[in-house]
Amino acid sequence: MFAEPKGFCFGVRRAISSLEEALDSYGRVFALGSPIHNPQEIERLKSLGLVIIDGPEELPTGEVVFIRAHGVPERVLESLRKTGAVIIDGTCPFVSKAQEKALTLAREGYLVMILGDKNHPEVQAISQSIKGPVIVVSPSEPFRFHEEKFDKVGIVAQTTQQKGTLSKLVSSVSEKAAELRVFNTICGATSARQGAIARLAGAVDGIIVIGGRNSANTAKLAEISINTGTPTLWIEDQEELERGWFQGKKTIGIAAGASTPDWLIRTIERRLASAKSAGEDGWEND
Amino acid sequence: MFAEPKGFCFGVRRAISSLEEALDSYGRVFALGSPIHNPQEIERLKSLGLVIIDGPEELPTGEVVFIRAHGVPERVLESLRKTGAVIIDGTCPFVSKAQEKALTLAREGYLVMILGDKNHPEVQAISQSIKGPVIVVSPSEPFRFHEEKFDKVGIVAQTTQQKGTLSKLVSSVSEKAAELRVFNTICGATSARQGAIARLAGAVDGIIVIGGRNSANTAKLAEISINTGTPTLWIEDQEELERGWFQGKKTIGIAAGASTPDWLIRTIERRLASAKSAGEDGWEND
Repeated sequence: MFAEPKGFCFGVRRAISSLEEALDSYGRVFALGSPIHNPQEIERLKSLGLVIIDGPEELPTGEVVFIRAHGVPERVLESLRKTGAVIIDGTCPFVSKAQEKALTLAREGYLVMILGDKNHPEVQAISQSIKGPVIVVSPSEPFRFHEEKFDKVGIVAQTTQQKGTLSKLVSSVSEKAAELRVFNTICGATSARQGAIARLAGAVDGIIVIGGRNSANTAKLAEISINTGTPTLWIEDQEELERGWFQGKKTIGIAAGASTPDWLIRTIERRLASAKSAGEDGWEND
Repeated sequence: MFAEPKGFCFGVRRAISSLEEALDSYGRVFALGSPIHNPQEIERLKSLGLVIIDGPEELPTGEVVFIRAHGVPERVLESLRKTGAVIIDGTCPFVSKAQEKALTLAREGYLVMILGDKNHPEVQAISQSIKGPVIVVSPSEPFRFHEEKFDKVGIVAQTTQQKGTLSKLVSSVSEKAAELRVFNTICGATSARQGAIARLAGAVDGIIVIGGRNSANTAKLAEISINTGTPTLWIEDQEELERGWFQGKKTIGIAAGASTPDWLIRTIERRLASAKSAGEDGWEND
């Protein structure tokens, strides 16, 4: 049983397709930062000619550069343009929209608040694009502000945040702001995956979550599954499947993060099916 | 002991002063609707030459017309202007601002939501001024919307609403709106009075709330006082003071709604003081 939707979200699928096409055409593509939070997929892309660099200053002249789905701050894009590099822009359209809305708010004199993880490249790209005051508000901390009152506050969210968290922040700020403007820049893909795994967990004896240990959205899926009380196994690849874990479980659900490639999901699915048909350890996969 | 602030808020004081000046100059002034939710004050103003009418069509030609603090819809103002009447505009500046912000939102394509009582003249003036979709959201009902999603929603509040109620509405709408813009048009005067009576109730043996039975903000003060568990007496004038009520109470607190005139508060205060000095029923007023 699969939690649907699973695996690559629209933005990641689009970015990785562009990257693959570029690798196919140019043989070598430089990516600004790791293009996806999945070690197995990174290995595969490296074997096709991907080179990961940390900043535009590391880019050799006249090369092809890939911008990942998380986007980059405007000044980075500017400096890339100046180098004359071929730019393959994989920025997710939902991320671009969040960035654009934040810029609109800043331009119109709002104090910009970004709900998100300040260490996440998407949030950094948004906050660093803004000239003027920005507050990054972490979803994991209670919303307390030193300010007694705000004049004009504008809020956007990292695309992978949860609606309920945004509404709590909005509620809290609304008590202090003379004017509040909120762009709900949350992408439905994340909540759809989260809703799906919550529903699936209630219908199966165990859940396998497939995704990189460095993937925030995969971690969230695992957390949701664990919180339902359903036994949950978070794996990066088929090597991590534990035989003993299937003991006594009749139906197993599978979920995968937005950065988990289809080929990896299929590999694990095949491994499970063959184990099932061989009657290994007596578990069934539905 | 008084709950401070008490009595006329800024907007009502300003409106009634203009009305008194107009009565003094012109001898007769027509008011569109009852100018204040206080029967005693209305009697006094009538004795000075006030005539209350229900609509602009009742206004004789060439007369002086008074617009109360709650304001009127734009079309009413227009038709008054056409009659050539002398207009004394007592609209509270905070109410004007709420109306202006609602018009801005409507003009910029937002679905306008007004948090407030749909039967209150202030809310009617705002909602009837808007061409386009308007939803009046009652603070006393749970915030449920049939709509699955909203595009652009703009929220303003009746000036006498509570901050916490606005933040709950904002939170609820933010989960459904792609864009949300909120103008906090709540006037501090109401919450200051409410905070004051809540604090006072904890420090006295009984609370007297002075204000019209038809005054929403006085009713709210009485409700807050009753909810603290402190014995509460809501009166319109000194005739309603109940001797027996004071039995066993050492300190009495006094609060008054935003439409309660100072002269009425002073009259009641004098009545209490004289009763105290006469040792009537053994109660004390601090």
